[in-house]
Amino acid sequence: MGNTFGHLFRITTFGESHGGGVGVVVDGCPPQLEISAEEIQVELDRRRPGQSKIVTPRKEADTCEILSGVFEGKTLGTPIAMLVRNKDTRSQDYDEMAQTYRPSHADATYDAKYGIRNWQGGGRSSARETIGRVAAGAIAKKILKTVAGVEIIGYVKRIKDLEGVIDPNNVTLEQVESNIVRCPDAECAERMIEKIEQVGRVGDSIGGVVECVARHLPKGLGSPVFDKLEADLAKGVMSLPASKGFEIGSGFAGTLLTGSEHNDEFSIAEDGEIRTSTNRSGGIQGGISNGENIILRVAFKPTATIRKEQRTVTRDRVETILAAKGRHDPCVLPRAVPMVEAMVALVLCDHLLRHQGQCGTLKP
Amino acid sequence: MGNTFGHLFRITTFGESHGGGVGVVVDGCPPQLEISAEEIQVELDRRRPGQSKIVTPRKEADTCEILSGVFEGKTLGTPIAMLVRNKDTRSQDYDEMAQTYRPSHADATYDAKYGIRNWQGGGRSSARETIGRVAAGAIAKKILKTVAGVEIIGYVKRIKDLEGVIDPNNVTLEQVESNIVRCPDAECAERMIEKIEQVGRVGDSIGGVVECVARHLPKGLGSPVFDKLEADLAKGVMSLPASKGFEIGSGFAGTLLTGSEHNDEFSIAEDGEIRTSTNRSGGIQGGISNGENIILRVAFKPTATIRKEQRTVTRDRVETILAAKGRHDPCVLPRAVPMVEAMVALVLCDHLLRHQGQCGTLKP
Amino acid sequence: MGNTFGHLFRITTFGESHGGGVGVVVDGCPPQLEISAEEIQVELDRRRPGQSKIVTPRKEADTCEILSGVFEGKTLGTPIAMLVRNKDTRSQDYDEMAQTYRPSHADATYDAKYGIRNWQGGGRSSARETIGRVAAGAIAKKILKTVAGVEIIGYVKRIKDLEGVIDPNNVTLEQVESNIVRCPDAECAERMIEKIEQVGRVGDSIGGVVECVARHLPKGLGSPVFDKLEADLAKGVMSLPASKGFEIGSGFAGTLLTGSEHNDEFSIAEDGEIRTSTNRSGGIQGGISNGENIILRVAFKPTATIRKEQRTVTRDRVETILAAKGRHDPCVLPRAVPMVEAMVALVLCDHLLRHQGQCGTLKP
Amino acid sequence: MGNTFGHLFRITTFGESHGGGVGVVVDGCPPQLEISAEEIQVELDRRRPGQSKIVTPRKEADTCEILSGVFEGKTLGTPIAMLVRNKDTRSQDYDEMAQTYRPSHADATYDAKYGIRNWQGGGRSSARETIGRVAAGAIAKKILKTVAGVEIIGYVKRIKDLEGVIDPNNVTLEQVESNIVRCPDAECAERMIEKIEQVGRVGDSIGGVVECVARHLPKGLGSPVFDKLEADLAKGVMSLPASKGFEIGSGFAGTLLTGSEHNDEFSIAEDGEIRTSTNRSGGIQGGISNGENIILRVAFKPTATIRKEQRTVTRDRVETILAAKGRHDPCVLPRAVPMVEAMVALVLCDHLLRHQGQCGTLKP
Repeated sequence: MGNTFGHLFRITTFGESHGGGVGVVVDGCPPQLEISAEEIQVELDRRRPGQSKIVTPRKEADTCEILSGVFEGKTLGTPIAMLVRNKDTRSQDYDEMAQTYRPSHADATYDAKYGIRNWQGGGRSSARETIGRVAAGAIAKKILKTVAGVEIIGYVKRIKDLEGVIDPNNVTLEQVESNIVRCPDAECAERMIEKIEQVGRVGDSIGGVVECVARHLPKGLGSPVFDKLEADLAKGVMSLPASKGFEIGSGFAGTLLTGSEHNDEFSIAEDGEIRTSTNRSGGIQGGISNGENIILRVAFKPTATIRKEQRTVTRDRVETILAAKGRHDPCVLPRAVPMVEAMVALVLCDHLLRHQGQCGTLKP
Repeated sequence: MGNTFGHLFRITTFGESHGGGVGVVVDGCPPQLEISAEEIQVELDRRRPGQSKIVTPRKEADTCEILSGVFEGKTLGTPIAMLVRNKDTRSQDYDEMAQTYRPSHADATYDAKYGIRNWQGGGRSSARETIGRVAAGAIAKKILKTVAGVEIIGYVKRIKDLEGVIDPNNVTLEQVESNIVRCPDAECAERMIEKIEQVGRVGDSIGGVVECVARHLPKGLGSPVFDKLEADLAKGVMSLPASKGFEIGSGFAGTLLTGSEHNDEFSIAEDGEIRTSTNRSGGIQGGISNGENIILRVAFKPTATIRKEQRTVTRDRVETILAAKGRHDPCVLPRAVPMVEAMVALVLCDHLLRHQGQCGTLKP
Repeated sequence: MGNTFGHLFRITTFGESHGGGVGVVVDGCPPQLEISAEEIQVELDRRRPGQSKIVTPRKEADTCEILSGVFEGKTLGTPIAMLVRNKDTRSQDYDEMAQTYRPSHADATYDAKYGIRNWQGGGRSSARETIGRVAAGAIAKKILKTVAGVEIIGYVKRIKDLEGVIDPNNVTLEQVESNIVRCPDAECAERMIEKIEQVGRVGDSIGGVVECVARHLPKGLGSPVFDKLEADLAKGVMSLPASKGFEIGSGFAGTLLTGSEHNDEFSIAEDGEIRTSTNRSGGIQGGISNGENIILRVAFKPTATIRKEQRTVTRDRVETILAAKGRHDPCVLPRAVPMVEAMVALVLCDHLLRHQGQCGTLKP
Repeated sequence: MGNTFGHLFRITTFGESHGGGVGVVVDGCPPQLEISAEEIQVELDRRRPGQSKIVTPRKEADTCEILSGVFEGKTLGTPIAMLVRNKDTRSQDYDEMAQTYRPSHADATYDAKYGIRNWQGGGRSSARETIGRVAAGAIAKKILKTVAGVEIIGYVKRIKDLEGVIDPNNVTLEQVESNIVRCPDAECAERMIEKIEQVGRVGDSIGGVVECVARHLPKGLGSPVFDKLEADLAKGVMSLPASKGFEIGSGFAGTLLTGSEHNDEFSIAEDGEIRTSTNRSGGIQGGISNGENIILRVAFKPTATIRKEQRTVTRDRVETILAAKGRHDPCVLPRAVPMVEAMVALVLCDHLLRHQGQCGTLKP
């Protein structure tokens, strides 16, 4: 049951990195939404391998087929199934993986849990699984945009110790997509790219932080007490491969302030709306959106796959040495951006429908 | 539906800070577990107001009544309902709250969502709601301890900029409970207490970081891909009031390392078990527990309620000035420790049962 | 997890027949609904023991306390917890039950499942558990009535072989409540009452059929494919104690017709609405309400508790003879009427909110 | 969210009768179960169109592709996605359906709910959707058989007024499959076949009753109070197309007995097990399996699609006359047998895992 996410807008992903393919079933999508395979492909192309010189050069088209739920260009309200075929090239590169556990990967834990695993390319724990999330997230984004004008924009905030200067309230998708590392601070982006290439050359890897903003979200989304908006956002992004931390608004840095420094004072805007003067809350108070921008950050560890030699063990409990063969991402951050956006969109879309379900009827 | 947490070990909390009471229904508890109201009360007393000079002096006994699901000292397998009555002292202190929104509280967002709120003492958004979590968490802890010897220990790691030196692998409950701030670094604890008192005297507040460790957890818990163990832990603790950030293992600091520095190499222990030499993964790989200690951190913002004057607005959209009256916690951290432990226990217990449900039958 | 029902309008019941009490938590209720304890008590009084000479004479007031979720007469949108205290008269009558399994009761199966049971008065399997359902159903009815003018009326259609002649399209609550057996066919009701009294005198019991109609339900409720409206209604009523069968519309009798006899032809009503000329579908087509009256029937077996001697066994696997002591219902049907109505209301209310959640936004 | 069924063993179906295909994702399957596409195909062939002269002659191979979750012949514990391609022959036969609502079909209600529908061949409401259920059911059956030796056998009990004489305790799959109508009473089967052919020749249709037995089910499955075993079975089969009624054990007929006639007395079997002398309970008491055979019946209405002329209306609210063109099943019962078995298997398998999850740990 761990492969389903959301309550009213609910997705179920399937597939391993090798085998028939990966995909997703989206249940609960509102009917009559205009959507096309092309729109979904745009997002998939942002997470695709081989898209630039700083990501894994493995070439996969990742072409998405919509199997159901869309008719004459519109959603039917019935499940939308989407499938991306694997090229299924069971490579010699992976043979060692049948026996040898890659450090800080899921090989050993999958074996511990299930007593069996598809060891080709990581199987179910491969980041290829996120294809289904990104495809479903494209639909969630479209709903949020259509219904409420919501914009969701993610970007690379930091690579190792290189941190960009970016204003989440004004950053644009164009700025994000203007360079291959997806950091809208152009000058910093250049240094990031250089760093990633340098690390890749020596067979090592690095991590960093993705920041994401959701703008124009209506007030009132989020369901206390367990399904607080930040709690569901945290779960969503912490379910992404390689994520190690989550912050909303002021995050960990906020713990260094006093209450009088941290609180967001209220005021009345020119349009008569209640607004906060600052946004250390990150757009959420008491688990419910307050109409300010949702701002969150996700820490991604350095890619576990490296070409350097590491000590490890085999399935049969023999100590050995492993150095990854084949190609890999020296840094997942550029490709993690659309994944974070997708998870944020899925959470917000689900809560939009949930809010409408509970509070749409009786409220005057 | 946001008031239910967990799948197989599932809790539903109810209640506002004023009114009939707060409580919880625990569904799915294994039968024949020995449990007493006294054991649950021990945990409730750790989160109780008035327990020391650095928490809110409001006196509430928070006595827990078990309404159902326990018979002759053992669980029946049927729902365990637990109720703590409110003293329901509708105080003059709260009258202003009917109209005036407290900055960085849930007053304004509850009104935006529901068009109505119980404005006495925060209503449903009050931290009194966590009584139900802590009571249910006591049962979850007992199950984890009984079935697998799991120990869950939380403590205050940092108050504002005062950070304790604590070894999560060896810290004891006795050390945690040896001082009122629940920081097992005794020397640092003294400075923390002093700081909290000083801040309280001037009507301000501070935040910090709670760290929590789960030891002796079996391998194999966690359900890829959305219900990864760290994702459910993140959701659990990020649903606590005042939480702003979450880290597992190396967390945000891990993003400053390279892959070769960050990876946890495998080795074979003396008992033949597969172990990792380091634990930057925080006990979880690929969303599944690997048998090492689970280590996580939660950032709590400075308490929103302060006696200092702040600019705010009323329900009728008039700007005004607010200074909280009455008593409040200048720092929630000491009382947050049992809350974090409870959420961690609830997540781990649920995943223990889920793992047993899926993988208990056919695995040789 | 089996003690929760519904997705958006979701209830969790708790409690055994003896012990602290029985109750329910209602999560997901729309805010700002006017509701009072008195309205809920009206429904509870319809299922109360001791209400007439043909039901068990055990006297319990079954007074409902609203613990949370209602403020100044209106729902808050937060969980509504309701509690009915047990009088907890651990009677000598029950001592034998600790060891001896009552035929066609849940004693043996609870022991088989849990290895423990509260043997006083049936524990969790007692029909007292339905108090929570009826209390929550009263709220669901109020929502359905307020939002869409929906009326739900149940009544006794048949007792053993005595079947009333009742028009579901025009029957009124007043007719149902005009006699103690809750059969709106007054002449038949008299014979039913006589039959029940006669059976009760000889220590035996009888069953029958409850029919229930929901009128003025909007078109479009129900979620294909598993959560078809009739599927959720079937689950709801088949979860009531003593139910053995369910029919929607033409039911089992419909299998004796040909398609040309059974199909409901469409026509255009005077108001321009699409209507069916007949209603063998029972108000549901393809799992979705079609605007006609929902009509369903539930079979209830004769009460398992009888004073006649029966062969049975003890917990220790010794054969023995049992004759129930104490008072019991010779026929559960009159008290089952409000239970059936409650389950129907809970299903319809949940689907009303679910429909609004999925289809409320984008449909032009 | 209505397209998902089950809690621990959980399936999600997708697909319309025309378009990319129909399929299912099975989540929560225990790992290391041996399963092959061939085993699944056996069940799919039992529900396939064109299998005999009494079902619709439309030829579709319904070949199942396993996309994920199985590796080297064994389940991985990760989602098993299965896909059956549609031949997607958008026939002229269906053009009229874009505008004209077929009586007692889902055309009008889908439009009322979603404002849009895939009108080709019934779209999502087509019985083709059950392909996913039957494929998933094949896996559930395999688990039940492997873990506990459970056998599930369905058969046609009645066609219109022709009722077979069948002993559910001893009927075999071979007997069921020995004739094309799937009624193990060979003599009655002949008359049923004749009747179906005769009805088909005049363009009409008929219905009937499927009975299903589950043998060797362990005691203790089922989760009081809402997820009683009979409640989940009722939901499962009432979610099948064309079902109108459900009975467990004595069913509606049981309401004609007195309690002393109806109760199942207990005795001790030769092997020391507690057994019931009769089985009017249908294998379930208090919502929990008691180790006796589960016996249930499902009423299926006469097929709604008939070639006879019927009055109906168009989408634009104009009255008209419709006579179905093309081929159809004059009686769905023979093909409904594997569907009923599948739903029963899905419910029992889910409850097997749920029971193991809750009660597998602590029970001595």
